Amino acid sequence: MTISEVREKAMLAQEAAAAMNRMTTEQKNKALLMMADALLEHQGQIIAANGQDLSRGRDNGTSDSLLDRLALDGVRIAGIAEGLRQIVALPDPVGTVLDDFRRPNGLSIQAVRVPLGVIGMIYEARPNVTVDAAGLCLKTGNCVVLRGGSAALESNRAIVAILKQALEAAGLPQDAIALIEDSDRASVNEMLKLNGLLDVVIPRGGASLIRNVVENATVPVIETGAGICHTYIDESAQPGMASDIAFNAKVQRPSVCNAMETLLVHSSHAGKHLPALAARLREAGVELKGCSKSQAIVDGLLTVEESHYATEYNDYILNIKVVENLDEALAHIRQFGTKHSECIVTENTEHAERFMQEVDAAAVYHNASTRFTDGFEFGFGAEIGISTQKLHARGPMGLPALTSTKYRIAGSGQIRG
Amino acid sequence: MTISEVREKAMLAQEAAAAMNRMTTEQKNKALLMMADALLEHQGQIIAANGQDLSRGRDNGTSDSLLDRLALDGVRIAGIAEGLRQIVALPDPVGTVLDDFRRPNGLSIQAVRVPLGVIGMIYEARPNVTVDAAGLCLKTGNCVVLRGGSAALESNRAIVAILKQALEAAGLPQDAIALIEDSDRASVNEMLKLNGLLDVVIPRGGASLIRNVVENATVPVIETGAGICHTYIDESAQPGMASDIAFNAKVQRPSVCNAMETLLVHSSHAGKHLPALAARLREAGVELKGCSKSQAIVDGLLTVEESHYATEYNDYILNIKVVENLDEALAHIRQFGTKHSECIVTENTEHAERFMQEVDAAAVYHNASTRFTDGFEFGFGAEIGISTQKLHARGPMGLPALTSTKYRIAGSGQIRG
Repeated sequence: MTISEVREKAMLAQEAAAAMNRMTTEQKNKALLMMADALLEHQGQIIAANGQDLSRGRDNGTSDSLLDRLALDGVRIAGIAEGLRQIVALPDPVGTVLDDFRRPNGLSIQAVRVPLGVIGMIYEARPNVTVDAAGLCLKTGNCVVLRGGSAALESNRAIVAILKQALEAAGLPQDAIALIEDSDRASVNEMLKLNGLLDVVIPRGGASLIRNVVENATVPVIETGAGICHTYIDESAQPGMASDIAFNAKVQRPSVCNAMETLLVHSSHAGKHLPALAARLREAGVELKGCSKSQAIVDGLLTVEESHYATEYNDYILNIKVVENLDEALAHIRQFGTKHSECIVTENTEHAERFMQEVDAAAVYHNASTRFTDGFEFGFGAEIGISTQKLHARGPMGLPALTSTKYRIAGSGQIRG
Repeated sequence: MTISEVREKAMLAQEAAAAMNRMTTEQKNKALLMMADALLEHQGQIIAANGQDLSRGRDNGTSDSLLDRLALDGVRIAGIAEGLRQIVALPDPVGTVLDDFRRPNGLSIQAVRVPLGVIGMIYEARPNVTVDAAGLCLKTGNCVVLRGGSAALESNRAIVAILKQALEAAGLPQDAIALIEDSDRASVNEMLKLNGLLDVVIPRGGASLIRNVVENATVPVIETGAGICHTYIDESAQPGMASDIAFNAKVQRPSVCNAMETLLVHSSHAGKHLPALAARLREAGVELKGCSKSQAIVDGLLTVEESHYATEYNDYILNIKVVENLDEALAHIRQFGTKHSECIVTENTEHAERFMQEVDAAAVYHNASTRFTDGFEFGFGAEIGISTQKLHARGPMGLPALTSTKYRIAGSGQIRG
């Protein structure tokens, strides 16, 4: 019986997991620094391999924006290596004692953080994710099986070969980092069913990649990604603050999951201040779609349709809806929100508290832009993604999200009566 | 378009979730006490409905042990009601502030515990689980959609009707507890795909029920259940303590997941002490299967086969394997363990530490029976199950396992630069 590449590499990673579990923080940090040095030292190899990916991409008619995500040069490689050094500086969560108590029968029980084991990463053609994910998994004592987009295969091959050499030089098991080179979609689907060999799968990428993982995985998944985020400007909002927050949430970087897709405005605020805000957004190149009430206030709005409220544009497009009160805003968010990041701008503390309490989302904001939902902005350092599910980790995931727990029970012969 | 029972009840539960999220601990506790009172007051109805289930079960040739699990009488109902009162006494995790910090830009960030939302419970014909699950979910501010085994349908109908009346009398939304009455297997499979309406599914039952859930769910799952647990008696173990711990782990309640299925014994200990331990186990009715080395030490052992090591007997059957050292024991556990509960009996602290560190399991024991892996034994109170996965919750799950977190961010107009 022949064993597939996916299964074989996952089995080797499981074997390496036991050794990784024994590594000290010092050993792991040393390996991370050696990985950073090795990427810089061998950047010529990486750039050459990346050139093959880029030229194949061009031949295949890949869009410029995708080619830009794929492209590596000395500056980008230096940035990627610097990312590994930043992971060294983060505290190691493994071994942290989360609970420590003694039972009346004398049993001493500790809950301690332990690595998850073997993490499967499924992502697109961004070679920086290869290094990021490897670094974050390594720091937390995990092994990682990487399945990047086939458009970055040569780049990833070169990078992973260099990282493995650094692992070996640092005395860590090479099998702790594995790259799936099989570029067939079947290799992804095989990973999704590898219960017992992969402890968790984390998808990073667009909506269709994530949907495929969520719908087909039997291995536990940490879902990241989709964000239909709202900003609600309440009656009592300060007009200047409201305009700045809404503008920032839409325009500062529209392509990301924590950007605003729909602006909800209280009717009395809208009458006075929506025209100026709409003009400011248009000047920044935002296409505006409005409900009938907002169309009566602002000239030339396109007509928003119900399906638009359920669309994550990730682009310079915005829906505007005028609401009569907080309850209408809450109901809209309940219907269309993806439980990612939601904001209220208000000077009314009672309304703020209701919004913060009642909106079901990973992050709820009072008087601040939703764009802050991010591991660096929260002070967690590099992140493996922003979890949009409620189990295990919610919101920006720092290193603890890559750990599990174990109960250690010390006795002196206790038996159960 | 007609909506299925499952979808309709899950949608109503989602609507009720917003109201449940606003309930205070006092309101929830009052409802739990009223539920306990109502079960006692209307026990006649429950016992009558249970009688219908029992007589149908007898007609269908249901086994006595299953009928016993299904049967309710005044004493059992009193025990179930008492379980609800015990949940009242547990601390409410919702609202607990897990993290609270301020960023250099002035943003104040809190991580707080919130309900998961709507929990789907899939279980077998044990009416006590209906009440347990409803009580634990209610205490944590969650709504619950219950799908119990069809053999208990009449009992569950009567119980849930009584619980809903109590909810209403306490001012809580009736839709917070829903029972799926469709006894077709399709209703289970529909629940497993209800992403967006169910926030998590928890299976409780035998291996095939759990496998079906894990293999088919697209909704996040908390896996509970299977346990192939080992006790390793090291060379330096105290013979009396080792015998007591192994005997307890096998015999005290063989039908549960934390009972021992395979005994690993160091060869030098086995030569001196295995015959006496084997005799003690046999006297308690345990059928013993042994490897060739143990067959050379103990007369009349059946021959253990590789597949037996991978079997969860949940019965008076035990595999015995003689090993030459700790490494061989660790390798066996790595190959056959289900990462539930594992024990070493030893006086060698270095060996104990290696075992506790290297064995990958929810609970690792030094000199105590694996039978202690249990919410009550850990002091957590009633449990929703013992998680055998690494995400979210591992080991006995107390009330916090039924919560998620939310970041609350308070600003004064911060925008991202």
